[in-house]
Amino acid sequence: MTVQAPSAGPSFDTEAFLVRERERVNAALAAVTNDAVAGAPESLRAPMGYALETPGKRIRPILCAAAWRAVRGGEATDAVYRLAAAVEIVHTYSLVHDDLPCMDDDALRRGRPTVHRVYGNARAMLAGAALIPAAVRVLDGAARTLAVPAETRRALVLELCSAGGAEGMVGGQLMDLEGEGRSLDWDALEAVHRCKTGALLAASLRLGGLAAGAEEDALAALSAYGRHIGLAFQIVDDILDVVGESHALGKTAGKDESSLKSTYPSVFGLDGARSLAAASIADALSDLHAAAVTSPDLEALARYVLERTH
Amino acid sequence: MTVQAPSAGPSFDTEAFLVRERERVNAALAAVTNDAVAGAPESLRAPMGYALETPGKRIRPILCAAAWRAVRGGEATDAVYRLAAAVEIVHTYSLVHDDLPCMDDDALRRGRPTVHRVYGNARAMLAGAALIPAAVRVLDGAARTLAVPAETRRALVLELCSAGGAEGMVGGQLMDLEGEGRSLDWDALEAVHRCKTGALLAASLRLGGLAAGAEEDALAALSAYGRHIGLAFQIVDDILDVVGESHALGKTAGKDESSLKSTYPSVFGLDGARSLAAASIADALSDLHAAAVTSPDLEALARYVLERTH
Repeated sequence: MTVQAPSAGPSFDTEAFLVRERERVNAALAAVTNDAVAGAPESLRAPMGYALETPGKRIRPILCAAAWRAVRGGEATDAVYRLAAAVEIVHTYSLVHDDLPCMDDDALRRGRPTVHRVYGNARAMLAGAALIPAAVRVLDGAARTLAVPAETRRALVLELCSAGGAEGMVGGQLMDLEGEGRSLDWDALEAVHRCKTGALLAASLRLGGLAAGAEEDALAALSAYGRHIGLAFQIVDDILDVVGESHALGKTAGKDESSLKSTYPSVFGLDGARSLAAASIADALSDLHAAAVTSPDLEALARYVLERTH
Repeated sequence: MTVQAPSAGPSFDTEAFLVRERERVNAALAAVTNDAVAGAPESLRAPMGYALETPGKRIRPILCAAAWRAVRGGEATDAVYRLAAAVEIVHTYSLVHDDLPCMDDDALRRGRPTVHRVYGNARAMLAGAALIPAAVRVLDGAARTLAVPAETRRALVLELCSAGGAEGMVGGQLMDLEGEGRSLDWDALEAVHRCKTGALLAASLRLGGLAAGAEEDALAALSAYGRHIGLAFQIVDDILDVVGESHALGKTAGKDESSLKSTYPSVFGLDGARSLAAASIADALSDLHAAAVTSPDLEALARYVLERTH
C-alpha cells in the first residue's frame, strides 16, 4: 500500500496528513509485532504486545518516513514504515520503564493502565528491556527489504543503539528523574531534554535519511532539524502540562507541578517558553533550507510541533 | 598482548588456564568499559561500571574466545577478547535486573552488594537496560578491528540480540521467576534453562565461530556444544546450591530451597542430577568430534563445567 504524499502550502491539511501517517505507522507496528515478540514465552509476549499497542502520536516514525521522502522523493513503501516502527519500539520501551514505580510511578498512559499496572513490575521491566533487541531485529529486517547495503544497515543499528542508550535516551531518563524535586537551571534542563527526547528524535530523522542514502550535509541538516524540534516538542509538552486538560493529554495534567519538576514554564514563564519553542522551530526550518533539503512534510511537522494542543 | 594457548591432555592445568583466560577477559572488559559508558551522565556511568567490575567466572567470554581459536587455530588477539566481552556485558545486564526487588531481590552478588543496593532501583534498572546497546557497540567495534566483513558483523549483532532478547535470556528470566513457588516438570525446567542460560552460552560460541569465519557445520556443532554445556552448567549450579557453602559461592546457598524453586536436584535427586550433567557433557564433546572441531580448550572447559566446586 502506498499513499500519495500531500503537498504543503496554504491548503496543506496537517491534521489529515498526521492521521494518514499514523495509520501507516500503526499498520507497520502491527505487522512487526509478531516478529518483535517471536519465540518469547506467552507471559512476555503479552506485555510487549500491550505496550506496542498503546496509542501514541507516533511522531518519531512519522519523522523517520518524512526524512526518507525528503531524500528520495516520491512515496515511502511499507518497508520504510517498518524501519520507522523500530524507533517507536525503542520509544515504547522507554515509556514502559519510565512508568514503573521506581521511576515516575504512573498509573495511566494515553488513557490506558500502564504496563506494570496490568502485568506487574517484573514483567513490565523485562518486557521493556526485551523491546531493545526486538527493535534492532525489526530495523535490520526492514533495511534488508529496502536493499540498504550491509555497511549502512550496521550504521542504522549503531545509530539506534546510541540514541536509545546511556549517552542518549536512558541517560536523559535518569537526569530527568534526578532533577525532580529540585530546581534546574537552563543548561541542566537543556541537557536532560537533549538526551531524553532529542537524541531519539534526531535519530528518527537520521535513520530515515541514512536508509534513503542521504549525503553527509543532508544528514547533518536532518539531525539539526531533529534536535531543534525535539527541544520545541519538550517545551510544548511542558506548556501543555500547565494549560492542558487531563483527558486530552491522556495523562494527569499538572503532574510536573505537583512533583516539583523543573520545566520550561517554571524556568522561563509561559510566554518565555512559547518564544523559545518558536525560535527552535525557526532554527529547524532554516537548517533544512541551508542544506537545500526541500520537504513540505517536515515543514508541516515542525509547525505541528509548535501548534499542537495535546 | 597474546598468551600461548595451553595444550590439553593429562597435564592440562584447567585452573591455571581459566585464571589466565579470566585475566584477559577482565582486561578486555576494563578496556571496553570506557566505550560502553561513553557520553552517559556520571550517575549512570557509575552503576554501569560497578556492574561490569563485579567479579565473575567469565565463562561466556572464555567460551567465545575458545570457539574463535577452535576455528582459526593459534592465538586470540585482544580484539577477540573485546568481542567476547560483549557477551559478558549482556550477561551482566541480566544479573543486574535479576537482582532487583521486583525479581529475585538479592542483596549480594559475588560477595559484593548488588547494584541496586548501592545505587537504588531506578539507576540499577536503567544501567542494566543501557548495557544492551552498549554491548552492541562493543561487539561491532571489536568485529571491525578483527576485519570481520560487514554482512557478518550484522549477523553477530543479530545473534547477540536474539540470544539476549525475549526469545532467549529475557524469556528465560521471566519463566524462571514465574516457576518460583511451584513445582515444574522436566520439560518446563528444561525450557527455562534453555532460554535463561543456554541461549547466551550457545551464542557465546556461535559469535566466536562466526567472527572467525566458521562454516555452517562447525557453527552448528559449536551451538550444540553450547546448549549441552549450558544445561550441565545449570544443573551443577543447582547441585552447588544444595551442597555448596555461601562464602565459596559468593551468594546465599540454599536460597533455591528456601524460595521453593524447582531445581534439577529437587526433580531428579542429587545423583540423578549428577548423571544428567555428565550425560550433557558427553553429548557436548561428541557433537564437537562429529563435526571434526578439535579444541583442547573446549574439551577442558566442558570438563570444568562438570567438575567445578563453586
